[in-house]
This record gives sequence, C-alpha cells and structure tokens, in this order.
Amino acid sequence: MGTPWYFVALLLTILTSSQGILTTLSQSDEGGYNYDYATVPFLAEVFKLIISGLFLWRETRTSSLATAKITTDWRSVRLFVIPSIIYLIHNNVQFATLTYVDTSTYQIMGNLKIVTTAILFRLFLKRKLSNLQWMAIGLLAVGTTTSQVKGCGEASCDSLFTAPIQGYLLGILSAGLSALAGIYTEFLMKRNNDSLYWQNLQLYTFGSLFNVARLIADDFRLGFEKGPWWQRIFDGYSITTWLVVLNLGSTGLLVSWLMKYADNIVKVYSTSMAMLLTMVASIYLFSFKPTVQLFLGIIICIMSLHMYFAPPQTLVDLPVTNEAHPKTLKQVIVEEKTDS
Amino acid sequence: MGTPWYFVALLLTILTSSQGILTTLSQSDEGGYNYDYATVPFLAEVFKLIISGLFLWRETRTSSLATAKITTDWRSVRLFVIPSIIYLIHNNVQFATLTYVDTSTYQIMGNLKIVTTAILFRLFLKRKLSNLQWMAIGLLAVGTTTSQVKGCGEASCDSLFTAPIQGYLLGILSAGLSALAGIYTEFLMKRNNDSLYWQNLQLYTFGSLFNVARLIADDFRLGFEKGPWWQRIFDGYSITTWLVVLNLGSTGLLVSWLMKYADNIVKVYSTSMAMLLTMVASIYLFSFKPTVQLFLGIIICIMSLHMYFAPPQTLVDLPVTNEAHPKTLKQVIVEEKTDS
Repeated sequence: MGTPWYFVALLLTILTSSQGILTTLSQSDEGGYNYDYATVPFLAEVFKLIISGLFLWRETRTSSLATAKITTDWRSVRLFVIPSIIYLIHNNVQFATLTYVDTSTYQIMGNLKIVTTAILFRLFLKRKLSNLQWMAIGLLAVGTTTSQVKGCGEASCDSLFTAPIQGYLLGILSAGLSALAGIYTEFLMKRNNDSLYWQNLQLYTFGSLFNVARLIADDFRLGFEKGPWWQRIFDGYSITTWLVVLNLGSTGLLVSWLMKYADNIVKVYSTSMAMLLTMVASIYLFSFKPTVQLFLGIIICIMSLHMYFAPPQTLVDLPVTNEAHPKTLKQVIVEEKTDS
Repeated sequence: MGTPWYFVALLLTILTSSQGILTTLSQSDEGGYNYDYATVPFLAEVFKLIISGLFLWRETRTSSLATAKITTDWRSVRLFVIPSIIYLIHNNVQFATLTYVDTSTYQIMGNLKIVTTAILFRLFLKRKLSNLQWMAIGLLAVGTTTSQVKGCGEASCDSLFTAPIQGYLLGILSAGLSALAGIYTEFLMKRNNDSLYWQNLQLYTFGSLFNVARLIADDFRLGFEKGPWWQRIFDGYSITTWLVVLNLGSTGLLVSWLMKYADNIVKVYSTSMAMLLTMVASIYLFSFKPTVQLFLGIIICIMSLHMYFAPPQTLVDLPVTNEAHPKTLKQVIVEEKTDS
C-alpha cells in the first residue's frame, strides 16, 4: 500500500464530515427517522466484512501478492473480539452518562477523548510525544470545545456544567473507553505483519455478530411488538439511508487502514477536523448560524494541526533572539547617530 | 538595572489588572464618575515625571553611577514628542470607531493590536520571530478573543460584527496606531545608551503637556461652564481615585522599563494576561459570571505564553517519532509472540 497516510486522513475527514450531513438528510421532515437507526451500524459492519473479504480473496489469489500473511491461531483471532466488547461497554456508559447530563454538555465532554487518546497512546503504545505535540493535542481539544460553545441567546446554555458529579465521572469514563478501543485496535493491527484485510475480516466478523446481538436484544426489550429485526430491516430505507450505510462502512475501512499504517493521533485530527467541516457545511446546507466561537475554534485547530505535524525544525529553526534580551536587542535595532 | 524582565512583566500584569478593578471601585454607586476622569491620565503623567526626575537626580549625583548618559540635543529631544502625537491621533480614531461599532465589538477588535504589534516589531525593529512564535502570537490574540466572547443570553451579542465597514477599517487603523506608539517608544528607548530616567523625563514632559492641552481643549469644548480645569482638578477625588492615578503612573513606568530592557512582545503578553486576571478577579469581586469561554481563553493564552518564551529545545527536543510513520512505529510497540 503506497498510499500516503495524509491522503487517507483527508478522505476520512471528508467522509466523516459527510456522515453527519447525510444522517441529517436521511431524517424525516419532523426530525425523526423513518427507518430503524440501529440497523445502520449492522449493515455498515456487513459492508466492511464483504469488502475486506473480497480484497483478501484478491490478495491471496494474485501471485505477486501471495506473501499476504494470515494468522489463524485462535489465540490471535480471539483478540479481535476485544474492540467489540469495549464498544459495547462504551455504548452503555454513554447511555448512562446521558441520563445525567444534557447533550450539549455530553458533546463538549466528548472532546476529552482527544486527550485520553494521547495519554493511552503514550502509556500503552509507548509512543513518545514532544512537549509541543502535547500542547498541540491540548489545543485541539480546546479548539473543538471552543467551536461548540453555544452562541448567544440559546436556551441550553444555562444547563452547561450544572449536572451531578456522576455525569462528569461517567463522561470521563466514556472518553477513556472510547480512547481504549482506538488504542487497542491500533495495537491489534500493528502487532504483526498480517494482511490488513485478514485483520479486518476478524474485526468485522465480531463487529457484525455484536450488532446482530444488539438488534436481537432490542427486539426482546420491545417484546417483538414490531416483529423480529430481519423482517423489517430495510423498512423506510431511502437512497440517503443507503448512502449513510455505505459512508459509515467506508469511514470504518479508512480508520482501520490508518490504525495499521498511521496512528490514533492522525485519526483524532481527522475526525476533529471533520466535526469543524460539518459545522461549516451546515451553515450553507442547514442555515446553521455561524458563531465567532466556530471561527476561533477553526483557527485554533489548524494551528494545532500545524504544531503537531510540521517538521520541528521549520517551527523553531532560528538564529538567536528567542528571549527578550536587552543587550542583543540593542545590536539589532537600527542605530541612529546622536550627540552625547 | 539587574532586575530580570519577567519580574517586571509580572508586576506590570498585576498592576494592569488592578487598574481595571480600581477604576470600577472608584465609580459611584450609579456607575458614573464623581470626578473628571480626564484628570487621571494627566496626574499619572505628572507622577511619572516627578518619579523619573527624582531617579535621574539621584543617578547623576551618585558618583558610582555618574556614567548616566544624557543627550540634550534638540534633534534627539524632539523625537520624544512623537509617541504623544501618535496617542493623540489614536484617541481620536478610537472615538470615531466607537461611533460605528458597539463596545463589545470594539473590545474584540482590540485584540488585533497583539498581531499588529508583532508585525511592526518585525518590520520596523527588524526583530525575527520563529514560526512557532508567530503561531504563539496568533494564539494569544485568539485566546483573549475567546475569553471575551459573550456568554449565553446576553443582549449585546446580536450586534456583534454587524457594524458598517468604516467601523472595522477604523478598528484596524486603531490597532495599527496603538502598535505603532509601542514600537516607536521601544525604538526611542533602545536607540542609544541614554539613562532610562532621562528618556522618561523627555517622554513624560511631552505627555504632561499633551494632557494639559487636552484638559484645556475640553474646557473650551464645554464653554468653561464648569470653570477652568485647574480650579476643579481634584473635585470628587477619593482615596480610590488617587490609587487609580498612582497605579496608572506605576504601570507607565514599568512599561517604559520594559521598552528599554525587554520588548513590546513582553508588554503585549503582560497586558493580555492582566486582562484575563481582571476577569477572574471580577468573578470574586463583582460577581461576574464565569463562562466556559473564559476558561478556554486562559488555557489558550497560557499555552501561547509557553510556546513563545520556552527555550525551543525544551519544546521539540525529541528522538525521532514526529510523524506518523508505519515502519518505525511497528518497532516501538510491544511485539507479541504469534504463530503464523
């Protein structure tokens, strides 16, 4: 795979940004869904499974690429269930968090994930970051938060950060679990030279199974009043709904690629930039009122991106004058002839 | 003067921050002033003139410090009138700006001064800044702006950035003039080895004269209906009003010191941090409602401070891993034994 990581990251940004827009477009005029939203991630998992299967099949068939490594030992395969388990726990923590805090606060706390990802990246994957990169990550979280701070006169503002302490603790746990899933996946993808498609196949098989289990659980919870999920899976699906599925599946495949060939921090930047891009697109598409905060947030995040990824020598390579230093300053400024 | 510049900068931050608080405390219960506010800068100039005169007298008398340089040539002395002229123009531009834009917009546009100061610092004083330092300055402006963005539900929000174009152009001109005054003063203070106190004496003599001229002009404008300024100069003065005068004079002396022994960027950081400190103090003193924006702005400004002043090697000094690079990454993460 000779594709540069920043190209994949850019594509992920665009598709992640489209995801929010497509999901909004797929809603009915009243703002609800005409289809069962829980079927979307299931179908996206199946889509990813099929695509990965096809690619793996092609890879093993092509003689020039016959070097594709496939580890079929159960002790290795079983590790691929762990991300699904973490996501399952995360979904439940997320649900519990939302019983304590409103969605605005939840959204703002979601930016903690940027910081928890960097911390686990350091602790579990032993990746070192420079002080400047740590600052860049802090700024990214501050920048995304700034962009989300509500504009003037919006009702939901007063409720911000007035929730019970449990809400915040669960929010932090949620950010930790979300980061853990990402970091563990990166570990899985990079721990050996197995074919990306084979690794995906294992990941998405468990993913599909967990999603089926969720659909069944939902059916039981509702007492099958709407019938079993497989009888109504495509009910209310429009072209846009299918685009949501394909888009979600595609972003999943790109994330998986990044986990193997780039890293979690690249993914975090990609999804953060996508969030800002969605907000900018919403100004045009959904008459979303732009705020000064959004403008400031975008500047902060772009600076953070530059601080993190620019080669350090282009940032600090400089003769001397880094500190206020009177003696050297005097030599720099233009001397004017004076009589004493 | 063996005092380190950061000590002076810290003192300036504290005193500048006190200035806003003292001024608020000096107001009457109805929010207005019982005294003529225009007399405050005049008395502060006179205070600075007296202090500088005393220090200069001591400096010239002390045999060990008899090296104090004093350039009395009129071609040199006349240059010290220029800051007063720039401030006079700036005051009028400021007044004109406020006829087009509201005070919230004016306050936010005031942060442009941070950027214009850095630009003139580069252009006129030929001081080079690293890319990181340019980013730090951009972040400082973004951070102070973020802290000032109005909280939810405040009435003045809708009027933000809806003023006629003249208002913004005048705001930019105002930021440019304010920066120019600072940069020119730094040039004046550093262009030769003259005693700081002698330079101050010249600066504050012109400053006092311009302030007297302003008081007289005000009298003429009002047709002397309240009598000449010298007859009512201390009317309504309280202890707090005198503290405002002393505080304003002291900050002026500190700024002058920084212009000679540090630079304009140090001053800009000092006054920006003072603005944030005032807002934090106002939470306790005046029941000012803290906003998420203020909290975010403080984080951004502290990061900016660190980026600008920390020695570059402490920010980026690092083995390798600065870019997402699959091959080296793989060597870093813990290898687990697998069967192929």
